[in-house]
Amino acid sequence: MSFKGSMETYRLFIEEYLENFYSRFHAEPQKPLYDSIQYSLLAGGKRLRPILCMEFCRICGQDWKAAAPFAAAIEMIHTYSLIHDDLPSMDNDDFRRGRPTNHKVYGEAMAILAGDALLTDAFLSASEAKLTCPEDMSRAIALLSTCAGSSGMVGGQVLDIMSEERQISEEEILNIQSRKTGGLIRAACGLGAIAGGASPEQVDAACRFADNLGLAFQIRDDMLDVIGTQEEMGKGVGTDETKNTFVRLYGLPKCEELVQKYTADAIQALDLFEDRTFLTELAENLTNRRV
Amino acid sequence: MSFKGSMETYRLFIEEYLENFYSRFHAEPQKPLYDSIQYSLLAGGKRLRPILCMEFCRICGQDWKAAAPFAAAIEMIHTYSLIHDDLPSMDNDDFRRGRPTNHKVYGEAMAILAGDALLTDAFLSASEAKLTCPEDMSRAIALLSTCAGSSGMVGGQVLDIMSEERQISEEEILNIQSRKTGGLIRAACGLGAIAGGASPEQVDAACRFADNLGLAFQIRDDMLDVIGTQEEMGKGVGTDETKNTFVRLYGLPKCEELVQKYTADAIQALDLFEDRTFLTELAENLTNRRV
Repeated sequence: MSFKGSMETYRLFIEEYLENFYSRFHAEPQKPLYDSIQYSLLAGGKRLRPILCMEFCRICGQDWKAAAPFAAAIEMIHTYSLIHDDLPSMDNDDFRRGRPTNHKVYGEAMAILAGDALLTDAFLSASEAKLTCPEDMSRAIALLSTCAGSSGMVGGQVLDIMSEERQISEEEILNIQSRKTGGLIRAACGLGAIAGGASPEQVDAACRFADNLGLAFQIRDDMLDVIGTQEEMGKGVGTDETKNTFVRLYGLPKCEELVQKYTADAIQALDLFEDRTFLTELAENLTNRRV
Repeated sequence: MSFKGSMETYRLFIEEYLENFYSRFHAEPQKPLYDSIQYSLLAGGKRLRPILCMEFCRICGQDWKAAAPFAAAIEMIHTYSLIHDDLPSMDNDDFRRGRPTNHKVYGEAMAILAGDALLTDAFLSASEAKLTCPEDMSRAIALLSTCAGSSGMVGGQVLDIMSEERQISEEEILNIQSRKTGGLIRAACGLGAIAGGASPEQVDAACRFADNLGLAFQIRDDMLDVIGTQEEMGKGVGTDETKNTFVRLYGLPKCEELVQKYTADAIQALDLFEDRTFLTELAENLTNRRV
């Protein structure tokens, strides 16, 4: 199947899986909670993390559908993090993906609770994975919670808040971004490998791929923000001086170099796997994208 | 050992375990997050849920310390729920246990993130349990996330908000309370039994004990609120007419009857276990307490 065809197959599958996951609760009386959850969970998006998770399972030699409970868990955690990030006391965003944010529609209390529920229910989804080796469930839950918790994604968010309005070092921005954006990408690749019955070396390689891809992805994101703003404003506005971005720290030409370097390092980490066509194309598409 | 001696042994052990759990992160740069977490996690409290968890492990025939990773996980989830419940958009409480609430000290954004981190890290702690049968990890994670998630504790919180300012039925208040307060008590007893290598029947019995104990506990709580307020105000103030409590629904004499009934049902659920002295005394002390 073509790269685009595989992307679409994965995406459609996880959309349906996520919707089905919550159908088990259809008789529950706390309907507004489920409305709020579904509003954000089924709002579209690229589903990049589930796709990575299922593809790693496949190239480790298992049916990629075996990774779906993990893939769904990671997308649920990603969704909760967006809901909480948008809250008035956090980024105070009114819109996301062209629609009002969760708290704008359901109120702040319900948005907090929908996020809490998604984060908790994610572990219910993860617990439903059928693993070749049952011992691997502990390993998967440990990796998922580490990547998402106080030393992972949440920790990165705190570091980002702490770094506001002061100049930070290169080491610091790498540290923040590899937790904040990188945390869940790492969990996606690592858990996919675990669902695929990978050896510890293969799980490490999947995590290394994720770490490099995450950085290349984030740097490209920062670059597109600046270029997008410049084109939109019809003039060279330079970088947003209040935000610590890779562009502000390195400038555009060095950023382009770094994207190429991290993408190459990501692809090199795939050496341990035989069938790396899809992931190579995914990495190149993501990090060379122009929108 | 005496009942009081055992309670104190369990309590001291879990206090130390919780403190040690977070010491692994001492070199992390997001120190304000850990300060905020520890402020609430190490604020004292009865540690009722961890105690239930460790005792169920013991009466199922294992060293009770084997349940500590589960017991700590449940206390971390309990703590996150208190932090988020106190937020301005939720109950808007300024004080808890005589100290300023988390968001009063660390700000709203950090309180939300500390709650998110505690909930996520709880699953890291749970993943560290050493189980006789590795297949039981999936069962434990499923039970924990179900009791705490959208159909458990968070769901109960939403139902409680939905029931504000309208009269609810007896069925509804049982439904709300068995999720909201009952959810984590159920997880505590069930996960303790799983850590103890219990049979599915024993895990069910532990959950039945928990469900009845949780209701007896909550009804006594509602009763003490009313009696406390009456004594404090120096007059019979009756029940808070804006809140759906058991006392408002049933009146004090019927509540006393119900406490006795649910306590007896809890103790009866222990029939499957040989050594039930401690849990019987704990149930009687909790539900007959006068403060």
